[in-house]
Amino acid sequence: MTIREIAQLCEIECTSMDENVISGINTLKDAQKGEISFLSDSKYEKDLSTTNASAVLLPSNKSYLLPKNVVALISDEPYLMVAKLSKYFSKPIQNSSIKPIIGVNTTVYPTAHIENGAKIGSDCIIMSGVYVGTDVVIGDNVILYPNVCVYRDCVIGSNVMIHAGTVVGSDGFGYAHTKKGEHIKLYQNGNVVIEDDVEIGANTTIDCAVFGSTLIKHGTKIDNLIQIGHNCVVGEHCIMVSQSGLAGSTTLGRNVVMGGQSATAGHLNIAAFTTLAARSGVTKSITEAGVYSGFPLMEHKLWLKLQAKLAKILQS
Amino acid sequence: MTIREIAQLCEIECTSMDENVISGINTLKDAQKGEISFLSDSKYEKDLSTTNASAVLLPSNKSYLLPKNVVALISDEPYLMVAKLSKYFSKPIQNSSIKPIIGVNTTVYPTAHIENGAKIGSDCIIMSGVYVGTDVVIGDNVILYPNVCVYRDCVIGSNVMIHAGTVVGSDGFGYAHTKKGEHIKLYQNGNVVIEDDVEIGANTTIDCAVFGSTLIKHGTKIDNLIQIGHNCVVGEHCIMVSQSGLAGSTTLGRNVVMGGQSATAGHLNIAAFTTLAARSGVTKSITEAGVYSGFPLMEHKLWLKLQAKLAKILQS
Amino acid sequence: MTIREIAQLCEIECTSMDENVISGINTLKDAQKGEISFLSDSKYEKDLSTTNASAVLLPSNKSYLLPKNVVALISDEPYLMVAKLSKYFSKPIQNSSIKPIIGVNTTVYPTAHIENGAKIGSDCIIMSGVYVGTDVVIGDNVILYPNVCVYRDCVIGSNVMIHAGTVVGSDGFGYAHTKKGEHIKLYQNGNVVIEDDVEIGANTTIDCAVFGSTLIKHGTKIDNLIQIGHNCVVGEHCIMVSQSGLAGSTTLGRNVVMGGQSATAGHLNIAAFTTLAARSGVTKSITEAGVYSGFPLMEHKLWLKLQAKLAKILQS
Repeated sequence: MTIREIAQLCEIECTSMDENVISGINTLKDAQKGEISFLSDSKYEKDLSTTNASAVLLPSNKSYLLPKNVVALISDEPYLMVAKLSKYFSKPIQNSSIKPIIGVNTTVYPTAHIENGAKIGSDCIIMSGVYVGTDVVIGDNVILYPNVCVYRDCVIGSNVMIHAGTVVGSDGFGYAHTKKGEHIKLYQNGNVVIEDDVEIGANTTIDCAVFGSTLIKHGTKIDNLIQIGHNCVVGEHCIMVSQSGLAGSTTLGRNVVMGGQSATAGHLNIAAFTTLAARSGVTKSITEAGVYSGFPLMEHKLWLKLQAKLAKILQS
Repeated sequence: MTIREIAQLCEIECTSMDENVISGINTLKDAQKGEISFLSDSKYEKDLSTTNASAVLLPSNKSYLLPKNVVALISDEPYLMVAKLSKYFSKPIQNSSIKPIIGVNTTVYPTAHIENGAKIGSDCIIMSGVYVGTDVVIGDNVILYPNVCVYRDCVIGSNVMIHAGTVVGSDGFGYAHTKKGEHIKLYQNGNVVIEDDVEIGANTTIDCAVFGSTLIKHGTKIDNLIQIGHNCVVGEHCIMVSQSGLAGSTTLGRNVVMGGQSATAGHLNIAAFTTLAARSGVTKSITEAGVYSGFPLMEHKLWLKLQAKLAKILQS
Repeated sequence: MTIREIAQLCEIECTSMDENVISGINTLKDAQKGEISFLSDSKYEKDLSTTNASAVLLPSNKSYLLPKNVVALISDEPYLMVAKLSKYFSKPIQNSSIKPIIGVNTTVYPTAHIENGAKIGSDCIIMSGVYVGTDVVIGDNVILYPNVCVYRDCVIGSNVMIHAGTVVGSDGFGYAHTKKGEHIKLYQNGNVVIEDDVEIGANTTIDCAVFGSTLIKHGTKIDNLIQIGHNCVVGEHCIMVSQSGLAGSTTLGRNVVMGGQSATAGHLNIAAFTTLAARSGVTKSITEAGVYSGFPLMEHKLWLKLQAKLAKILQS
């Protein structure tokens, strides 16, 4: 798709009528020559002047910030335009003709489905009903219990155990919204990377990144029925207890513990060695390790004090 | 099963000894000739005088409200009797001999299971481990990711995407209770209808209706690990974020947004364009659109004010 | 593995240099001759003097409590040592050569996978994508909907219905922690036992016991997306509503009702006939039946009173 065709699709006036071919969408920071990018949040303005993108969708009053060789595609709704475009750059479910490579001493049950382009290491057990998508890479000594599903392009390290029914790499929940109130899907082109020595429970869901990777670092243990949103980073040796959830783009430092049914909002940073009690709800980043409770969140000591005060009010 | 046999099964005295055959159970409002209905909640009394049911299970003091040609089956526990009967009228998992119809350019993976009577449109992808039940109807350009399960009789529109492990049409959670504390299953005979342009995340569950349909309207987007109870109606262009839930028979108007881990009780109406913040819990219907938070629910502005007051109490 | 080899593996000095073979790990109370046990929680000290274990991992200051014929393996970190050992005593996914036994009039869909050693009764329906593990025993008249997964050694009674995607017997979430902050998996050797007349919804997860059984008693009904931790006991005729959860080793008495999104901490006892309102969070055992709400939990009447007081504070 050329820049000109993109401009036409987005109903954007484009003086350059550029015939250069665009091969993908990416963030301002990560875009390479031949990719298109966009500015939808002012906090990324700083990346405009250094972007390597060939074209950028952005409002007219920001176009002056772009390098001279980058085509400005002017739109009041750049995020909506990117969503509309994303469909054309989304990867198909199957597009490899390379037969899967399966390591020595690896068992694949007959009803598992391994797509072309996948590589599975040695000493693995891929149980019944498992799906391993196109170009997935799996290390050694991995157990995927029945009906685990790994979407295309995901990467799983060694000594990983994923329990039944868990989904790795499903689409992140990302939409642009039209003025009429419709939601236009932002096709998710990233993946999930799971490092070594991770265990994941049953019926948990980990969404792939919009661009780049959702990352589960070395040694982390994740329980059942947990939601991890797109572009999250879960640090080394974290513990996430059942029914907890991370909204998109939140980062946990190493050795964070999240109690049952706790959750965080999106785009937060949680300091290493933080403990979030069961049911706690985090709406702001945590810069200092400690034990936190409640919703809104507070130090656990304060939460206990608040409950004591409420008990007194109740008796009054 | 005749009315006489039903009376015997329910240990009900039935003077009419009617040999008319009953073919199903339905609500007072929707029952047709040849169906049996019941009165278990006084709010449906108004439907007694106009019901087309052939027989109605109800307490003796309400039987005078029935039209003359309708057989009254007198019981102190009509709901329990309906539950006992429901088993006899439940549909089997397989009862069609019509080979599935698959549209042009549709891919069905070899380990997918399509029951007889199902119809799938064109340009669909039905991935590995998917189950499509008897008499299910699926439109065009639908992707069912691995291990999606669609129970019998459900209807899915066009341009629908359902992510891995999601279950559509599982039995609603409905039981009558005996005086001994046992729970008697009310077999669920309805379905789920999903309209066009809906996307549903991974490992979500949408229960079928007791009678009639659970309905997900056009353009709605549903995230991972969400519960939608039987007989809910989710309006057009709604957004439900991960781990939220709807108890049975609740209706969302169009463009309702439900934040992560929020939930509603059953039998509520939520006004169109309402936003429910993350973690909010709704126990009463909402008639006016706005932003609401907390449990118990209040306007988001009030919730913020309450938190400020509590912070003061904590410091005092 | 001999006691001497275990001592070496755990880097424990063992004066006895015992060549007796150890065949498994168990609790102090349930261990038999030939098994190893451990003391990691002082509340089990009382079981030391009567244990039948052949060897016990424990701190040096407790070894005097052991019977004379039991080998004391002295460690400051007995739980960590047990975790390290547990891998060697974990059961493989497949280790039976006995072809599965399937009862009369039972339907097994072609893509279901039944491991060797499994026994399934009569009049069952085992649908597509179901996994039935090694040595699983299933009664009569059981329906396992598509993609249900039953891990090895689990026992399911008669007249049980399990909806699509539910996982029975996944590993409990149990780890020992090293001083460096790593988590060492305690391999789970127990099972799940589900008694007669139980119904379980879709995409629910029930973890197996560390030792012994997680138990779901007769007549209990469990909704969708529910978490039941390892070693829980759910009494007869309980009702668990969607998205509720039980942390490990909690016991519900008979006819307990848990509302939607409610949860309990681990190691609690909940009195029979208790009702926990939606969203309630239980952190202490409940000895008296009643209706409870809130987090922290209180009598529902008190919770209503508290909300009224908070409403007044809000207006002040």
